[in-house]
Amino acid sequence: MAQINENFIKIPATYLFSEIAKRVAQHKEENPTAPIIRMGIGDVSLPLPDASVDAMIKAADEQRSAETFRGYGPEQGYAFLREAIVINDFTNRGIDIAEDEIFVSDGAKSDTGNIGDIFDVNNRVAITDPSYPVYVDTNAMAGRAGEPTATGEWTNLVYLQCNSENNFVPALPTEKVDLVYLCYPNNPTGTTLTKEQLTVWVEYAKANNVILLFDAAYEAFITEEDVPHSIYEIEGAKDVAIEFRSFSKTAGFTGTRCGYTVVPKQLMGNTANGEKVSLNKLWNRRQCTKFNGTSYIVQRAAEATYSPEGKKQVKALIDFYTENARIIREGLTKAGYTIFGGVNAPYVWAKAPVGMGSWEYFDFLLKEKNIVTTPGAGFGASGEGYVRFSAFGSRENTIEAMKRLEK
Amino acid sequence: MAQINENFIKIPATYLFSEIAKRVAQHKEENPTAPIIRMGIGDVSLPLPDASVDAMIKAADEQRSAETFRGYGPEQGYAFLREAIVINDFTNRGIDIAEDEIFVSDGAKSDTGNIGDIFDVNNRVAITDPSYPVYVDTNAMAGRAGEPTATGEWTNLVYLQCNSENNFVPALPTEKVDLVYLCYPNNPTGTTLTKEQLTVWVEYAKANNVILLFDAAYEAFITEEDVPHSIYEIEGAKDVAIEFRSFSKTAGFTGTRCGYTVVPKQLMGNTANGEKVSLNKLWNRRQCTKFNGTSYIVQRAAEATYSPEGKKQVKALIDFYTENARIIREGLTKAGYTIFGGVNAPYVWAKAPVGMGSWEYFDFLLKEKNIVTTPGAGFGASGEGYVRFSAFGSRENTIEAMKRLEK
Repeated sequence: MAQINENFIKIPATYLFSEIAKRVAQHKEENPTAPIIRMGIGDVSLPLPDASVDAMIKAADEQRSAETFRGYGPEQGYAFLREAIVINDFTNRGIDIAEDEIFVSDGAKSDTGNIGDIFDVNNRVAITDPSYPVYVDTNAMAGRAGEPTATGEWTNLVYLQCNSENNFVPALPTEKVDLVYLCYPNNPTGTTLTKEQLTVWVEYAKANNVILLFDAAYEAFITEEDVPHSIYEIEGAKDVAIEFRSFSKTAGFTGTRCGYTVVPKQLMGNTANGEKVSLNKLWNRRQCTKFNGTSYIVQRAAEATYSPEGKKQVKALIDFYTENARIIREGLTKAGYTIFGGVNAPYVWAKAPVGMGSWEYFDFLLKEKNIVTTPGAGFGASGEGYVRFSAFGSRENTIEAMKRLEK
Repeated sequence: MAQINENFIKIPATYLFSEIAKRVAQHKEENPTAPIIRMGIGDVSLPLPDASVDAMIKAADEQRSAETFRGYGPEQGYAFLREAIVINDFTNRGIDIAEDEIFVSDGAKSDTGNIGDIFDVNNRVAITDPSYPVYVDTNAMAGRAGEPTATGEWTNLVYLQCNSENNFVPALPTEKVDLVYLCYPNNPTGTTLTKEQLTVWVEYAKANNVILLFDAAYEAFITEEDVPHSIYEIEGAKDVAIEFRSFSKTAGFTGTRCGYTVVPKQLMGNTANGEKVSLNKLWNRRQCTKFNGTSYIVQRAAEATYSPEGKKQVKALIDFYTENARIIREGLTKAGYTIFGGVNAPYVWAKAPVGMGSWEYFDFLLKEKNIVTTPGAGFGASGEGYVRFSAFGSRENTIEAMKRLEK
């Protein structure tokens, strides 16, 4: 009798985005001419850099003739892309990462989801709360999260609260954990850790034999000097951290699909007997067994983001969204709201007026201002009482939304 | 203390292709001018269909402007591709499959590797022997294979021998199993099951509450009438089977990356309590949580294989390799070898001369004939005594190789 993985049926259905869609549809039905502005989206709105489009067209054209055709590529990614990544994202920042520590993939969602394959099911996992739901759900599927409680939390996960009281800096776990997910700049709060604050985590991990799973998908939005772009800027991090990167928000690859994961060769996991095993080798084995490499054409598009023109075009994209974020921060502040994030990230995290929950605040913004946001409670219990504004919309809509709020 | 998944370190390193490379390199060193012909490859050699290249160039160009830019797509694949798949691969063959039973992916390797996520770790797995190593290794990683024995087999896997004695038709398992991997047309043997033979499996699965994982990556090479292209041609298969498809060998997508998986809505798995759970819903949940959809540009390339020009171009590719396979079969037969497969598949499975093992036969062909093959033992114990000839090479090399053998 073929038996299912019952962990799957423990996971509550995700109502967040369908519930948002339902409420927006109802509002529209009641107010057919309402000029709705969507600021809930996590997707980008600007097109791909021309350099990437040009590279894809050239790469596609190469597939017409046997001489330039590309069949199976290396599961870890082509050398041309791994080299460009190493030089531009690491060497140029003074970080020593080797090409064979880079694993190119179809995106950070796959990698943050699949990384659990190389870890034992009995590891204790900590996540910051609120967080990107993939960390929770993939651990739940693997059986690492235990049972869901009535409040939607899981019995075996350790939640590290991030809220205005601790200025969104999670405290170190007070109980024993083995794996910690950190996402900085943070989705959904848009907040960051400084070098000093991240150093605390690296030292904690080293002292406690903990592996940090560091999601840096939003690093391109960093504007402040003391915010690390990579966890490997912190001394000793190569002994304790795996880093996830993405071209999705950086260069608009949400539909083109490319990301990469860094697994330092010196990073070790443990067997039950306490023997050390290279995680780089395990991840390599996982990728070679369950993945056949990212599309050649897409890898050429990613490589092009590192060309001189590509860099200029990527910077223009980031600058555009960063200016949107500034407009949102300024607008919300003028309107009297308490806000966080948005300086080094494309998200602004706004506190609901006293006494209002996430969904009430969401409804207020939808019904009174025709603005769609994302209720913070959808990202975890500590997100209750907040909503997320995204800076990925058009300039026109961003300005118009802030005008409505200032009124 | 972060603990690794120790199943990973049980898996022996794969020496097959590195061992082949080593022997070829040594032969070349000793015979620098040897005119080596490579017939071991599983990769295609002909370029992509023009229709797919044109579609990719158009799709890439759309990414230049915000109006036609594509961000996050549906995790299950775009409707345009799912529709084309349903019509061309199923409806036109008289098979009733719905769009929401199709899950587009970056390839069959990912899907056959990841499908284990939705099944309990205690399911008993059967595989045909020899087989595609991904089935074995991914189950080993998940802890479903038990321990490796000295002969390279796993204690908890059930091996269904396929050899010349049973004409490569696996016998039904004599012990209780829950999941069975079947790949037809078969990699590596190039043999097939007729409708009648596959019906036996569907009926067995139905009677024994077994799920069939049917890998049809090579279906485009079928030339004979009574060989099913899809397991869903067999009555009742939608109650017992998941099917994997690929554009890799069909249309040369080995480096472009696209495939899909069919999970019928009526297909149920069981909980420990015997409750029925929809596997379509579980796979949908898995894909939505750990995958962000296949690149839009690649999906357009796949869609184009179903256009009138695309179909003609794909047929030309398949015809070319099929003719190579015919030449190989004829050549090996004339040379006095006993062969199997190659009629409905791009692989010919040749029996080593009496008393010769896979590697001895490989060495003989390399040293005496300057032909590189793949030793059958690399695909499992029952592959011992065979080598695989691939039809994916050039016409010129294929003809020349057969001339050498006939001598």
